[in-house]
Amino acid sequence: MGEENKIEEQLQTIYPNMVEWRRYLHRHPELSFQEQQTSGWIAERLRELGCEASTNIGGYGIVATIKGSQPGPVIALRTDIDALPIQDEKTCDYASTLDGVMHACGHDAHTATMLGIASYYASLKGQFAGERRLLFQPAEEVTPGGALGMIADGAIDGVDAIYGVHLWTPFPYGTVATKEGPFMAAPDEFYIDIQGKGGHGGLPHETIDAVIVGSALVQALQTIVSRNVNPLEPSVVTVGAFHAGTTANVIAERCSMKGTVRTFTEEARYSIRDRLIDIVDKTAALYGASAKTDYRIGYPPVVNDADEAARFFRVAGEAFGSEAVQVSPLIMAGEDFAYYLKKVKGCFMFVGAGNPACEAVYPHHHPKFDIDERSMLYSAKLMISMAEDFVGQ
Amino acid sequence: MGEENKIEEQLQTIYPNMVEWRRYLHRHPELSFQEQQTSGWIAERLRELGCEASTNIGGYGIVATIKGSQPGPVIALRTDIDALPIQDEKTCDYASTLDGVMHACGHDAHTATMLGIASYYASLKGQFAGERRLLFQPAEEVTPGGALGMIADGAIDGVDAIYGVHLWTPFPYGTVATKEGPFMAAPDEFYIDIQGKGGHGGLPHETIDAVIVGSALVQALQTIVSRNVNPLEPSVVTVGAFHAGTTANVIAERCSMKGTVRTFTEEARYSIRDRLIDIVDKTAALYGASAKTDYRIGYPPVVNDADEAARFFRVAGEAFGSEAVQVSPLIMAGEDFAYYLKKVKGCFMFVGAGNPACEAVYPHHHPKFDIDERSMLYSAKLMISMAEDFVGQ
Amino acid sequence: MGEENKIEEQLQTIYPNMVEWRRYLHRHPELSFQEQQTSGWIAERLRELGCEASTNIGGYGIVATIKGSQPGPVIALRTDIDALPIQDEKTCDYASTLDGVMHACGHDAHTATMLGIASYYASLKGQFAGERRLLFQPAEEVTPGGALGMIADGAIDGVDAIYGVHLWTPFPYGTVATKEGPFMAAPDEFYIDIQGKGGHGGLPHETIDAVIVGSALVQALQTIVSRNVNPLEPSVVTVGAFHAGTTANVIAERCSMKGTVRTFTEEARYSIRDRLIDIVDKTAALYGASAKTDYRIGYPPVVNDADEAARFFRVAGEAFGSEAVQVSPLIMAGEDFAYYLKKVKGCFMFVGAGNPACEAVYPHHHPKFDIDERSMLYSAKLMISMAEDFVGQ
Amino acid sequence: MGEENKIEEQLQTIYPNMVEWRRYLHRHPELSFQEQQTSGWIAERLRELGCEASTNIGGYGIVATIKGSQPGPVIALRTDIDALPIQDEKTCDYASTLDGVMHACGHDAHTATMLGIASYYASLKGQFAGERRLLFQPAEEVTPGGALGMIADGAIDGVDAIYGVHLWTPFPYGTVATKEGPFMAAPDEFYIDIQGKGGHGGLPHETIDAVIVGSALVQALQTIVSRNVNPLEPSVVTVGAFHAGTTANVIAERCSMKGTVRTFTEEARYSIRDRLIDIVDKTAALYGASAKTDYRIGYPPVVNDADEAARFFRVAGEAFGSEAVQVSPLIMAGEDFAYYLKKVKGCFMFVGAGNPACEAVYPHHHPKFDIDERSMLYSAKLMISMAEDFVGQ
Repeated sequence: MGEENKIEEQLQTIYPNMVEWRRYLHRHPELSFQEQQTSGWIAERLRELGCEASTNIGGYGIVATIKGSQPGPVIALRTDIDALPIQDEKTCDYASTLDGVMHACGHDAHTATMLGIASYYASLKGQFAGERRLLFQPAEEVTPGGALGMIADGAIDGVDAIYGVHLWTPFPYGTVATKEGPFMAAPDEFYIDIQGKGGHGGLPHETIDAVIVGSALVQALQTIVSRNVNPLEPSVVTVGAFHAGTTANVIAERCSMKGTVRTFTEEARYSIRDRLIDIVDKTAALYGASAKTDYRIGYPPVVNDADEAARFFRVAGEAFGSEAVQVSPLIMAGEDFAYYLKKVKGCFMFVGAGNPACEAVYPHHHPKFDIDERSMLYSAKLMISMAEDFVGQ
Repeated sequence: MGEENKIEEQLQTIYPNMVEWRRYLHRHPELSFQEQQTSGWIAERLRELGCEASTNIGGYGIVATIKGSQPGPVIALRTDIDALPIQDEKTCDYASTLDGVMHACGHDAHTATMLGIASYYASLKGQFAGERRLLFQPAEEVTPGGALGMIADGAIDGVDAIYGVHLWTPFPYGTVATKEGPFMAAPDEFYIDIQGKGGHGGLPHETIDAVIVGSALVQALQTIVSRNVNPLEPSVVTVGAFHAGTTANVIAERCSMKGTVRTFTEEARYSIRDRLIDIVDKTAALYGASAKTDYRIGYPPVVNDADEAARFFRVAGEAFGSEAVQVSPLIMAGEDFAYYLKKVKGCFMFVGAGNPACEAVYPHHHPKFDIDERSMLYSAKLMISMAEDFVGQ
Repeated sequence: MGEENKIEEQLQTIYPNMVEWRRYLHRHPELSFQEQQTSGWIAERLRELGCEASTNIGGYGIVATIKGSQPGPVIALRTDIDALPIQDEKTCDYASTLDGVMHACGHDAHTATMLGIASYYASLKGQFAGERRLLFQPAEEVTPGGALGMIADGAIDGVDAIYGVHLWTPFPYGTVATKEGPFMAAPDEFYIDIQGKGGHGGLPHETIDAVIVGSALVQALQTIVSRNVNPLEPSVVTVGAFHAGTTANVIAERCSMKGTVRTFTEEARYSIRDRLIDIVDKTAALYGASAKTDYRIGYPPVVNDADEAARFFRVAGEAFGSEAVQVSPLIMAGEDFAYYLKKVKGCFMFVGAGNPACEAVYPHHHPKFDIDERSMLYSAKLMISMAEDFVGQ
Repeated sequence: MGEENKIEEQLQTIYPNMVEWRRYLHRHPELSFQEQQTSGWIAERLRELGCEASTNIGGYGIVATIKGSQPGPVIALRTDIDALPIQDEKTCDYASTLDGVMHACGHDAHTATMLGIASYYASLKGQFAGERRLLFQPAEEVTPGGALGMIADGAIDGVDAIYGVHLWTPFPYGTVATKEGPFMAAPDEFYIDIQGKGGHGGLPHETIDAVIVGSALVQALQTIVSRNVNPLEPSVVTVGAFHAGTTANVIAERCSMKGTVRTFTEEARYSIRDRLIDIVDKTAALYGASAKTDYRIGYPPVVNDADEAARFFRVAGEAFGSEAVQVSPLIMAGEDFAYYLKKVKGCFMFVGAGNPACEAVYPHHHPKFDIDERSMLYSAKLMISMAEDFVGQ
């Protein structure tokens, strides 16, 4: 408790910087894999804080290393740094200054929080055990994301545990949440191209009508979730786009579809993939058409280690009080934090950032997305507490 | 017979002009309702032939009037003069000189034939009974076409019978065909706009998925022909285009469709229209979406008068021999000649224009469409023979 | 004309017998291939009329032969003699006396008419040319019907032309009708058996749900008529019965369907058969099920010879006046008269038998079916006139 | 621990009786709500054991009351006593002696276990605190089951906690399992009756084809689970039976369906019910048919109290070792134990009963269903341990 209080106290002194940093980043967003300015700016801040930083890790990624004077475990904490191709519709003074690009998912605040954590550990002047490794990861918003590059460049070599946080506006400010085991979805995409035979709109018998094939396919695809998947496995198969034909009186030659599949286990993912491709092929065959499916495996599901999730519920309860701590439902979005968790044990956590009082009421990826900035304080305290609990265990 | 031979002999002398005229027009096509140059050129030709011509009838239409010295009936013969928005892929010296515009349906030859008929009647120097009225109609290729404007401007006032010909490459050169009663389809178009509720691809329960509604709609629309229409009524309902959504992981908010309906009776047409709109509305309601249908009534079906069709079978047999004369099946294409037939008795006829020997093997509206030009001679002889038989009866 | 009048006059004297005969048969119906009593009774009547009759032709069939004293062609006239498994709901004194069996299609009247024709020719005492052969055929109501057996036993050997009539209550008494070429449908039947994999209603992922397969199949079968068949070919594909599963909470293991296909050309019939079997197989495969289709080819379409149809329109016009004569639409019912027409030229004709005044308002196969009995007189006169016109040509 | 050992020791002495009782009941099964002999036999056994028993509670139910000499809480333990309409296919000497009726779900062993528990408490001669109330409930296998009647007759009045066990062959002998919160499904049933308009198989346009409506309905119902339900809510909608039409060439007038819905929350249940009825009504309307849905709400979901589930994981770990204790997945079957849990806190638990060594390998409701009888010992020990832990807390 005394420990908790000390962390809190120290972070309160850093908080104004975190707000300033967050607003700077919010004004200057960069798209995934294009975070050159952002990366340079982070490196500069770390230098100011006296932190040792390796740049160009997995592209524009940075790994900051802060070593304690006593031996001990290596704990990694991770932020993502990229923005989205969305036009900022806010009018506040920290709104994006770049047309069509916006921090609409909170990665600006994630990054500012991580700089705050760097500040915190720098202020300890080595009075701690082991190593804290801060990962500033590019390109979380695209598939395959930046985590793989960071890992390939050794960012988590030797790491004993890894923690990460997503600020989350659907949860209210003042709460923290996660769950043991599967937590966030594996988000795959599929692209289907059906080849029929076009012709005169009045002579269907001379054609293979791609609109008919496509429509029958959409119907058949519903049975994956309604009949083929174990009802206890949460899963979604969505056809997001369906395009066929151009004019009223010509029968369509081709039909193209795009869609997404969401699952929480690798078993469900691959059984849905196989069934989907089978349905596409056989529906096309049923109508004499041919079809190709490009099924793109996305991030793995985020699966939290049972012990580390238990640590969260204990540590967060101590840090924020038990009313603040929630068991999260499964989340249909994906996260490339999943890749770290396949290598190292750890926990990905949500910190509530919604608050009508500061117009933080919009879902992620919304043009008016904003957060209650105080959630950064929760996030920093949560990650530090998790790290110190691990070290002190 | 003697009469037939005289017509034939005279047309043979005119034929080289018809070919020259047709090729000129083929080089200089104009789109529907934009036939300004074509109309001016026709008027000039008619003037050279000494024919009285009223211009700007129903837009760029022309009515040429050739009067006999004896009293008698007024017979109208009709051609259409517009071209199509198709890129000519032929390489012959009379290929279209205008990018993206082409006489891909034979209206150039129809017009040259009609000028040939004008020549023929001019050559008679009034030695015939009644009046021959030659209609050069614009805009047959679009809905609503040019026939209505011609009629509104009086083009068939006082007419006793009307005949028209379409050169037709699916029928071989040397044949002529039509049928009594319903002959060519009523071609309607429909435009459907479905409004669902978009959302995150992983959260279908918060949305109304327009792809689902659209696909179910296509399935339901099949039952119009398979279950609702009298199986003895030939009819087609085609969804030619289906467009919904843009990206893989967003559920589509809207779905738009375009399609065509083909029928041969007004009863079938309107009962299909009503059922289609009902299916759209109720399918949308089934899924909690809303929908609007813009159903556009096209040309009426071409319905040949029984007596005039009988005249065709007799006259054409005499003119070309009975082996050349065929009962046509119903034709799924539409023709705005239908409007004339709702006002005046008459007959619309097909003259075979296909011939592999001159590469006239492509369907109408094909970028390499061409005809056996001698079909113009058949067409001219057929229309003149029909007119003279009517007068002489 | 005088000839027509003499036939009419003579038939009028026979008419009371025809009524008596018809009512006797109506009281004593027998099912297809079980017409033993009926056949014996007909043979007795023919003996009384002095006609030579061969019995047990194609089962309970009878061929009566009446020869003229002059040489000439052999003309066959045909009736059917079987009844239906329907409970007579009429209360008149000639209602069926046999539970569950009824002349609900008019074959009683067909047979009485043929006996009247026998009477007529017997009364001529050989004063005619050639031979009249009267076919009393069993089992028209089932597939394969009695015509094949009659033909196999030589019933139409040496025949020059054959005529037959169906009394038809949808057409009013006082009218006669047929059409050239295809006239009545080829009625096929199909029986589909789908094998899925049953299981617990709450565990669909462990099953192959036969209800899903069957429902998807019904949807796919609609596209045969809506997309695969030439819209100018009238055709019907109907699934008449669909049975799967027994209880609410068990997923169905099997699904069985029965249905009918109606076409007017052999080409359409066989292309639909092939497409139907293909759709069944591929829909089953799509869902991992297996399926078997038993497709039973029924009667051929009734196709009237062009010359003989022309004879009908001429002869019937002379016999009954032109207002009485109609071009029939295509009829969706089948008739095994079709088999005779594949061997010998001839014509199958309808004689209107509907009349609200005598409660002849019910469709064929209805439990209250009845006819205007005077239609028998039309039928007899029509068949005799056709025969005599053929002979006299 | 010492406590656990004493319970175990005592139960071991009772075990041979439990086996004998179980086999007697297995030989003499009775259907739901017809358990007269069974009820009488249980009452006799309880009398022999010196237990006070109230009979005819909620029909053939019995409540045995065993009071301790010290004051304390009232703990209810429950068994079900009915059998199933299934033909026993086992050949062992305790196979069912009644044709078509069988204890194929283990209620015989549940009952024998409860008698063993009665024995145990009787043997304590009042040396315990509070009251143990043993519920022998009829009719668990039908909806609405026997629990409601027991409750109505006061069986759980004054009860502080209730526990129940299902032996479960899909889980291996030697394991015990349950889960906090929703555990077993709410199993509803629906019965749909679609009224179309029948007619001739060749004249679809004169009918409303109930096979078409039914098939479209099955397709539309798939979208409840695939699109309308939150993917995180496990749910199933199954159409188990589909019946329409009788013959191949008659279009079906009616279509009837039966099915089941499985959910784990009341919210999901009622939202599915409403959506299902809406889909039925609107699909019927889409095709011009009418439809009625009889939706029968079944048992509520079995929802275990969080504290009592926690008690299970602690108590069972102490009793059987932690490797024996599992978190159960959700179970798609229903249980009317759910009604007790809506009134009193408690926990429903599974005890593994599968064992290939004694042919206990068949799923529940299978004609060869059997159990490893030693699971009764686990069950008795589990229920007693739960009760005593509650009392001792």
